[in-house]
Amino acid sequence: MPLVRIDLQQGTSPAYRKAIADGVHTAMIEAIAIPPDDRFQVITEHGVDSLIYDPQYLGIHRSDKVVLIQITLSTGRKPGQKRALYKRIAQLLAKSPGIRSEDIAISLVEVAWENWSFGLGEAQYMKD
Amino acid sequence: MPLVRIDLQQGTSPAYRKAIADGVHTAMIEAIAIPPDDRFQVITEHGVDSLIYDPQYLGIHRSDKVVLIQITLSTGRKPGQKRALYKRIAQLLAKSPGIRSEDIAISLVEVAWENWSFGLGEAQYMKD
Amino acid sequence: MPLVRIDLQQGTSPAYRKAIADGVHTAMIEAIAIPPDDRFQVITEHGVDSLIYDPQYLGIHRSDKVVLIQITLSTGRKPGQKRALYKRIAQLLAKSPGIRSEDIAISLVEVAWENWSFGLGEAQYMKD
Repeated sequence: MPLVRIDLQQGTSPAYRKAIADGVHTAMIEAIAIPPDDRFQVITEHGVDSLIYDPQYLGIHRSDKVVLIQITLSTGRKPGQKRALYKRIAQLLAKSPGIRSEDIAISLVEVAWENWSFGLGEAQYMKD
Repeated sequence: MPLVRIDLQQGTSPAYRKAIADGVHTAMIEAIAIPPDDRFQVITEHGVDSLIYDPQYLGIHRSDKVVLIQITLSTGRKPGQKRALYKRIAQLLAKSPGIRSEDIAISLVEVAWENWSFGLGEAQYMKD
Repeated sequence: MPLVRIDLQQGTSPAYRKAIADGVHTAMIEAIAIPPDDRFQVITEHGVDSLIYDPQYLGIHRSDKVVLIQITLSTGRKPGQKRALYKRIAQLLAKSPGIRSEDIAISLVEVAWENWSFGLGEAQYMKD
């Protein structure tokens, strides 16, 4: 894993949400070398009053198309990789489904490699 | 950002939920010096069987009005600031929308400053 | 707390979800010595297109019964305890509600002990 949580306002199509999920995943493959089949994503839509964002923090003009992306991933990515990840997510979501880069907010939560079980009750990344 | 996730049982009004979100944000401004326009919050309501809490852990008597508040924020707040934050959230939510302090549970997830992108595909808090 | 977030596809019964929540909690008591009444869990169901998982990452064959379990907990558990936790969750959910161990993915997010308030606006785990 990473485990990716994507929150956005309700009223989008399945194809729109799939494009977001696909773009985030592709960016992770390209920018931080996530294996292509290491994909776990949860998308949640919210009513207009339940997804609250500031429309101008840091001078960035956000709209109700804002997407909050929170990625839990293992530690060890360098600052340059994180920077590349943010940039690539914005590029890919601009292409499809066509989201302004102002509307994409990302946060990373880093955890130890031993903090994952991918199934079978085992700690696949833990050193013995 | 911080990114604030607020989980509570369904059946509340939009005004009630707004009061919670406003109170949490004001407490963050006052107690830990979050910029007033640095606001990103996600509120999710849950069915009675999908928000599970112990009604007496640590001798604190919780009701079905329980609110779980999880705040992802950058590292660096001192213990005294965290303590002030918990206290201020409880004070403000007691005033409006009128939630007993027993029903407010808070957790903080701290991440590196470079772990945020607020838009434009950039890492606004990353040192060059 | 730990705070446990459980995400799965919609269409399950309340009894099925309760069995998952009960099993995860019992495993935490047994494997990492969580107090029995330290229980806070949020369960969220998702449409088929909103819970995305790879059906074979690491050679583990997942189905649409996949359950993503994310546990925020205090730091300090040793690798052996984490390993025991993953194993015990898988064992208990296999018994009830009868989930294949391939379908159980777990991640842990560790935070400082001072990062919790269980109510009353206080930091119950903070050293004075």
